[in-house]
Amino acid sequence: MSSNRDIDTLIDLMARLPGLGPRSARRAVLHLIRKRGLLLSPLADSIARVAATARECVNCGNVGTADVCDICTDETRANGEICVVEDVADLWAMERAGVFKGRYHVLGGTLSAMDAIGPEELRIPRLLDRIGEETVGEVILALNATIDGMTTAHYIADQLGDGIRLTSLAQGVPIGGELDYLDDGTISAALKARRVL
Amino acid sequence: MSSNRDIDTLIDLMARLPGLGPRSARRAVLHLIRKRGLLLSPLADSIARVAATARECVNCGNVGTADVCDICTDETRANGEICVVEDVADLWAMERAGVFKGRYHVLGGTLSAMDAIGPEELRIPRLLDRIGEETVGEVILALNATIDGMTTAHYIADQLGDGIRLTSLAQGVPIGGELDYLDDGTISAALKARRVL
Ligand SMILES: [Zn+2]
Ligand SMILES: [Zn+2]
Repeated sequence: MSSNRDIDTLIDLMARLPGLGPRSARRAVLHLIRKRGLLLSPLADSIARVAATARECVNCGNVGTADVCDICTDETRANGEICVVEDVADLWAMERAGVFKGRYHVLGGTLSAMDAIGPEELRIPRLLDRIGEETVGEVILALNATIDGMTTAHYIADQLGDGIRLTSLAQGVPIGGELDYLDDGTISAALKARRVL
Repeated sequence: MSSNRDIDTLIDLMARLPGLGPRSARRAVLHLIRKRGLLLSPLADSIARVAATARECVNCGNVGTADVCDICTDETRANGEICVVEDVADLWAMERAGVFKGRYHVLGGTLSAMDAIGPEELRIPRLLDRIGEETVGEVILALNATIDGMTTAHYIADQLGDGIRLTSLAQGVPIGGELDYLDDGTISAALKARRVL
């Protein structure tokens, strides 16, 4: 396409990123080549560093550069609260809001009969183990307000039983809305107005 | 943001690509980390290779991995025709159409009083030199159908004088349209129906 194999390979790889199609991948690669010193070399270094070190936390599913992530090893965040999110992007959205001081549990999706995603695929067994290991008093469900998100919330409620306080983000999360699209203020309000399930 | 400096650096760099904002950069980086083996490492290698080798052709402005690009060194393309485009993305669009067998000249933009872009910034002097050096019989203007594109076409027509056949893509390029958005068939039709200026 560019009559150069190295450049074509880079375009093909970039086009596989979410949000970039072939055309925007070509534009991005041309931009990178034009800004070679400012952007291309730093990006090469940065990607190589992340490729060498990034991994999922074995405890919570967050991404970081150690087997156990910074939040799970931070003793000041062992306040007895675990916030359950679908995706690492949702964890980041919660952190940007800056109001939650506990730890997280990243499911990696929601239960889905359609896509044959069951509890084992979602780190739900690991969540149940953590309740005891980390003396958790409250589990806050911060799942997307979708059908699959609500199904997952009900399933987790059944598994936890009555011994534990289970809450969910409430006020402010629009029906059908996805957490990562919300502004920080809306997330703050939803956390403060959380209700017992 | 991700509570990890390496990952945050990568998100910041990705967010500076055209077409990606902060949110899509975060999504892209999470996707890269999840597909570490399949995507992140190959991308790191590919970017490093392009960063080390990519450069602009000193003759025509195309990008490649040598001082003079593959098209400029291909003797079968020395057919006396030079196609003038604004951008490398437009050159790629012409190549995808597969109907033009000559060489290119990439201006790197259009004349613009507003942005103070004059002929020197656009490789127009180099174009005039090439006419003699490469015994060019026809210059085909494949500029975007915008005001600045047409101003640039008129300026080039004045510079070339009467000794050379000067044509432009005609039928099929919509008013205000940009070449890189067109399908291959439209580009083919526009090239075949080109008219003498
Ligand atoms: Zn963790
Ligand atoms: Zn060239």
